[in-house]
Amino acid sequence: MPSSKSPLAAPEIEALISLLGKVPGLGPRSARRAALQLLKKKDALMLPLAAALQDAAHKIKACANCGMLDANDPCTLCTAPARDDALICVVADVGDVWALERAAAYSGRYHVLGGVLAALDGVRPEDLRIAKLIERASQPGVREIILALSATVDGQTTAHYLTERLSTLGVAVTRLAHGVPVGGELELLDDGTLFTALASRRPS
Amino acid sequence: MPSSKSPLAAPEIEALISLLGKVPGLGPRSARRAALQLLKKKDALMLPLAAALQDAAHKIKACANCGMLDANDPCTLCTAPARDDALICVVADVGDVWALERAAAYSGRYHVLGGVLAALDGVRPEDLRIAKLIERASQPGVREIILALSATVDGQTTAHYLTERLSTLGVAVTRLAHGVPVGGELELLDDGTLFTALASRRPS
Repeated sequence: MPSSKSPLAAPEIEALISLLGKVPGLGPRSARRAALQLLKKKDALMLPLAAALQDAAHKIKACANCGMLDANDPCTLCTAPARDDALICVVADVGDVWALERAAAYSGRYHVLGGVLAALDGVRPEDLRIAKLIERASQPGVREIILALSATVDGQTTAHYLTERLSTLGVAVTRLAHGVPVGGELELLDDGTLFTALASRRPS
Repeated sequence: MPSSKSPLAAPEIEALISLLGKVPGLGPRSARRAALQLLKKKDALMLPLAAALQDAAHKIKACANCGMLDANDPCTLCTAPARDDALICVVADVGDVWALERAAAYSGRYHVLGGVLAALDGVRPEDLRIAKLIERASQPGVREIILALSATVDGQTTAHYLTERLSTLGVAVTRLAHGVPVGGELELLDDGTLFTALASRRPS
């Protein structure tokens, strides 16, 4: 396999390729192709992208309340008057909020942890926005904390830990249901999902 | 499948995601993930990337002689004193020059066509840098034009067209050899490659 270095490209192009290669989803090879395409579309894509990166970098910050990324702090979701203050949905990341909002199945508030507990990666409770969650969950009017964490070992470890921490506050703590994904073929599902779906069966 | 739109993300983030999604190699979903990661690494990646895009967009231009992208015009490859002026290697794109330079098997000059002839996509001879190639090939001292074009229908059509156009100039016109790729498993090769490799067999 040839090396991804090309010492004869202009330093400006090499610098661009090296940074593009660090963008998740682009490796060294696709970064090279992306750089070329960008240079071919300077006015249509390259300069607008540079401006959008700068604009977002300067304006977007984490909401001090829920951890969501937004141009406002507190964020649009925390200040939306139509949302239910009694519910707080706890997620690992900003992308999870986007996914839930796309599903349009929830209209309470959110709390972004900023990750999940991961002993092997050295992510401890104090690395996540857990203290702020306890503070929010302790406020009067909060009725239920919904733990919307991934069905992975780390996600469920985090859910277990949070359930313990929140248990003394007098709020209900719930988790997302596990089961057969909508549109999922039964014969393609893993054993764990099938087992859980069967154990959690409901009257039809 | 959920829509890739998330109307509740900040407009600055939506604008960024939309532009990132147009970068080759990133689709709408990976653009969303990339935007999030960039926002998490503002100083380490996001702002440097914005600066690199702007820097390259302003400094890099196509060499008027060979079509290569470089900060200098004529470019570094056209002005390098150690390269052989008697050889001109014709490629479709800048990325092909990089690939040949990585292989370090060639030390003549290059000529970047800016694509290949493609009747279906409406790419005609006048859309490529063919006039400049004829001009360069007509200069005294030029001995051989090497057509290093892809072994695709369009690539070989272009090679055929260029061979005709160059035939009256008194320079040798050659093409890259076809055959078994180095490291290629024989049983995994397509029939066309095997046929060509067999027809072009050499004394061992």
